[in-house]
Amino acid sequence: MKTLALLFSAAVLAFGSQEDDIRRVLEAQSAAWNRGDIPGFMETYAPDTVFLGSEVSRGSAQVKERYLRKYPTRAHMGALTFSELEIHVVAPEAAYAIGHWQLDRGADAGGPAGGWFSLVLQKRQGRWLIVLDHTH
Amino acid sequence: MKTLALLFSAAVLAFGSQEDDIRRVLEAQSAAWNRGDIPGFMETYAPDTVFLGSEVSRGSAQVKERYLRKYPTRAHMGALTFSELEIHVVAPEAAYAIGHWQLDRGADAGGPAGGWFSLVLQKRQGRWLIVLDHTH
Repeated sequence: MKTLALLFSAAVLAFGSQEDDIRRVLEAQSAAWNRGDIPGFMETYAPDTVFLGSEVSRGSAQVKERYLRKYPTRAHMGALTFSELEIHVVAPEAAYAIGHWQLDRGADAGGPAGGWFSLVLQKRQGRWLIVLDHTH
Repeated sequence: MKTLALLFSAAVLAFGSQEDDIRRVLEAQSAAWNRGDIPGFMETYAPDTVFLGSEVSRGSAQVKERYLRKYPTRAHMGALTFSELEIHVVAPEAAYAIGHWQLDRGADAGGPAGGWFSLVLQKRQGRWLIVLDHTH
């Protein structure tokens, strides 16, 4: 029983640390956005990522093209905040996250925007990457 | 090399079969809907599932309550079709699916409806269950 309890604690700690790792990845991602760095923001996406919005974009090149088109200037990018972020690790190398995104920006740059998002992340060669981004 | 190739083939076959299993689960789920069987439809959800729509529902009881509220009669349930279904297995026991849902129903029952969805599925005790449903 002691061994089981220890194994369980180790599993909880391991999964807890995975959650922290993912949280840090998403914090770094929103920080990149907030300094106007779309290439830095894109580093969190897997090359074969899928983005599901009102349309489907496939692959990080197409997703990046979509961001550049929708947010053509620093003013359009505004200030991004993630809130109500929840991370659920479902396998040692797979997790999902849900949260709310909020974009504060001037009316002449599209005005404030926001909504819910969900992400599927996969750990590849030690790095958590977004393989699905469903945002609306 | 031969061993590696065999192992690789076995992995591909195993993942291929996981995809088929998930596809069958989702087919059974839409079949339950189309016979007006919301409890049967709910069997695909994990007890701790999260449903993200315009609101967040937590746990299969709350998700079921939402379905019963939004689809109070057989006519409101209409005929459900999933299309453009894609399944991506991201770990031996974790996968995501994306697809388009279409509800055909009479104008007096709310009219046709549809949109994109994404699901995160987890294999628990040999059964694939939806742990996240993001539908809009």
